[in-house]
Amino acid sequence: MPAFDYDLFVIGGGSGGVRSARLAAAMGRKVAIAEEYRYGGTCVIRGCVPKKLYVYASQFPEHFEDAAGFGWQVGETRFDWQALVAAKEKEITRLEGLYRKGLENAGASLLDTRAELTGPNGVRLCATGEEVTAERIVIAVGGRPTPHVDLPGHELCITSNEAFDLPELPKSILIAGGGYIAVEFANIFHGLGVETTLIYRGKEILSRFDQDMRRGLHAAMEAKGIRVLCEDLILAVSATEDGRRAATTKNNGTLTVDRVMLALGRTPNTEGLGLDKAGVETDARGAIVVDPYSRTSVASIFALGDVTDRVQLTPVAIHEAMCFVETELRGNPVSPDHDLIATAVFSQPEIGTVGMSEEAAAKAFPAIEVYRAEFRPMKATLSGRAERTIMKLIVNAADRKVVGAHILGHEAGEMAQLLGIPLKAGCTKDDFDRTMAVHPTAAEELVTMYQPSYRVVNGERA
Amino acid sequence: MPAFDYDLFVIGGGSGGVRSARLAAAMGRKVAIAEEYRYGGTCVIRGCVPKKLYVYASQFPEHFEDAAGFGWQVGETRFDWQALVAAKEKEITRLEGLYRKGLENAGASLLDTRAELTGPNGVRLCATGEEVTAERIVIAVGGRPTPHVDLPGHELCITSNEAFDLPELPKSILIAGGGYIAVEFANIFHGLGVETTLIYRGKEILSRFDQDMRRGLHAAMEAKGIRVLCEDLILAVSATEDGRRAATTKNNGTLTVDRVMLALGRTPNTEGLGLDKAGVETDARGAIVVDPYSRTSVASIFALGDVTDRVQLTPVAIHEAMCFVETELRGNPVSPDHDLIATAVFSQPEIGTVGMSEEAAAKAFPAIEVYRAEFRPMKATLSGRAERTIMKLIVNAADRKVVGAHILGHEAGEMAQLLGIPLKAGCTKDDFDRTMAVHPTAAEELVTMYQPSYRVVNGERA
Repeated sequence: MPAFDYDLFVIGGGSGGVRSARLAAAMGRKVAIAEEYRYGGTCVIRGCVPKKLYVYASQFPEHFEDAAGFGWQVGETRFDWQALVAAKEKEITRLEGLYRKGLENAGASLLDTRAELTGPNGVRLCATGEEVTAERIVIAVGGRPTPHVDLPGHELCITSNEAFDLPELPKSILIAGGGYIAVEFANIFHGLGVETTLIYRGKEILSRFDQDMRRGLHAAMEAKGIRVLCEDLILAVSATEDGRRAATTKNNGTLTVDRVMLALGRTPNTEGLGLDKAGVETDARGAIVVDPYSRTSVASIFALGDVTDRVQLTPVAIHEAMCFVETELRGNPVSPDHDLIATAVFSQPEIGTVGMSEEAAAKAFPAIEVYRAEFRPMKATLSGRAERTIMKLIVNAADRKVVGAHILGHEAGEMAQLLGIPLKAGCTKDDFDRTMAVHPTAAEELVTMYQPSYRVVNGERA
Repeated sequence: MPAFDYDLFVIGGGSGGVRSARLAAAMGRKVAIAEEYRYGGTCVIRGCVPKKLYVYASQFPEHFEDAAGFGWQVGETRFDWQALVAAKEKEITRLEGLYRKGLENAGASLLDTRAELTGPNGVRLCATGEEVTAERIVIAVGGRPTPHVDLPGHELCITSNEAFDLPELPKSILIAGGGYIAVEFANIFHGLGVETTLIYRGKEILSRFDQDMRRGLHAAMEAKGIRVLCEDLILAVSATEDGRRAATTKNNGTLTVDRVMLALGRTPNTEGLGLDKAGVETDARGAIVVDPYSRTSVASIFALGDVTDRVQLTPVAIHEAMCFVETELRGNPVSPDHDLIATAVFSQPEIGTVGMSEEAAAKAFPAIEVYRAEFRPMKATLSGRAERTIMKLIVNAADRKVVGAHILGHEAGEMAQLLGIPLKAGCTKDDFDRTMAVHPTAAEELVTMYQPSYRVVNGERA
């Protein structure tokens, strides 16, 4: 008789949970996975996937406008928000089905219920009240937009959770936040024809990104017609008589808009999860504390993905899940590698980045070389669109290693993905220089910047 | 009194000629450059640049169609060929001006004339008949579409030289050839609404590319509505009474179309250049024979770019020019590196490729691993467009080095450019595996193919 009902019980059907449950089940382990909402998690249901689909949708007006410079006349265009929402819904439902199918095919038990810990090996299924036991428990419950309860009128605001499914497209929106979620939604709504304002407390959007990316995107957004208010914040939100929202700001008076969206960080979903009953430690933000092998303070309980607040990205959660399975179920200890993670901001233009910003590298190394190109993308020469692509390579002068690569422009995300390979492999600027250009591409700039634009020595531009 | 009129005389104002003249002049050398047509060469005037602009133009109908799946209604669209030609002309004229300006600023003398050799150090300027001397002469006169004079009716056909500037857009076109130029034009004309047929003698288009790329693009072109006739050729072309063209084929009867375009290779522009007078050797195809340092059989004469028929690509000509300057004018012998050149075919979908095809690698190595992904691009899930992206990595099993990377799909050219870096640096599949994915991108497939799709051992699929 087995000591536990399951070898592995996974709480949360997002990227990290599904991957760990599927791999474990495929190995023949007895696995259950519980999800209270929809399989796929933030990424599939209200994150990466719908976001990227809406980005595509929001780009069409640029295509329609650009066409004229290439000899095309385009008749009147109209946008149907409900049609986009329905198309998105159909696609994420399809993906949700694929996730379920993958789990079922691997032999995992899918439990459509919220699950809470009752102890180091115990889980309560909230839908039925049933209690089950498992040798190992993985917590992969993710996070949610911070509700920002200190803001008067926060309940009148939406978050990224609601933004994808608004009953109708607002005519105007005020988005609070300067992170990638705020920035991406500002670009999406603007592209779809919404009068868009971004308000952010910091000096410049996208803190910790390379300054050229931050300033370049800021300028591009303003040039398109997005109002960007930095060093300002919302003090209170109220409803107007006609059902709109009045946001009182610190420095820009009262802004009256159809919707106010808060994108002010994300909070781990640990409330009411029974962590205290099991003895699982959390930090001040409510994130589960884990060691380098995703172990919590309880030997039988592990945590993966956003709930641990390490790096909140889908591929990272998946990587952590694979490392967990390798370590715990295959007996081959592998610690997740969080170094040199390439990422993208799907703004328009996009940002793609991997490694250190110029500012971080200037602090980390006595001398760096910065290779920087700024140019008009080829398509814009005929479309007439005023846009600039910026590409930067940051090189540690001591060993010639490329320690950072940053791109603002079309397909920057795809480029960052592939730049991740040589950076992770420790390639030098000479490896870049030895690579023949592919013409005409934008990326060829990255292998033809033979002379540094400038050097930074001991933190000062030389 | 200097022994020669010039330190360097460059014949040909294309990619290789301009780069060598500009660099040499910037070093303070006395330099002249002669161009009989327009500065910028094939690349700027009737190659890469107008091609890419026309590719953009030809993509708009897909944007218009794709929009519907994202909630957009698009009114009637119309295309004005003459407007595109005029916009292209304006842009290449601007670029031509930049090339001239760059040369002038560096201090080179621009001679708008055909120039022919009179001896190892002598050049005749055909516009005036003047003869000048130079210590070194660079021949960078490029190539031109092979006229295919053996084909009855070849004079009734156009080539890529004329295709960009046709007085009007044909309703139908037959393009002969299976190389990248034929394929790119077939996709451009089809995209602009022209009924397009490609006819190619070989078994499959794009010989020497990876088979998956060849078959995948062939299938995609046919699915779009391009007629692709392989293992067939045109026997004769005649004019019909209404001014159209009737092409007699070997296997597909007579095809009557508005235009027949021949894209059957390119011929070095060496006729009448005076090579015999100077004693410069050419090969059977008329290409100038050079050693690894771009030296011809005459010590004072060098040849760069397409006229040498090494690798006919703009970045290669530029690289050869830079190596020439480094070797001859800076006394630092550097031989052009023609190994592992990434390239793109700007078809729709694009092909991006670097390194060995599966077929070539299977011959070169006792055992290879093939990692292959085929998927529907994310945008197509909502647009409903039937298209597949194919990505392949070819790995030498003995040392795990990635020896080939091949992509069929959107932005494959940009991706090939950046894959060129790790391949050139000799990165292994493990370096790819260690790289975190960027989600959602297409390129993330290239770093998440953890298990080989199959192996090829001693030339046989294992």
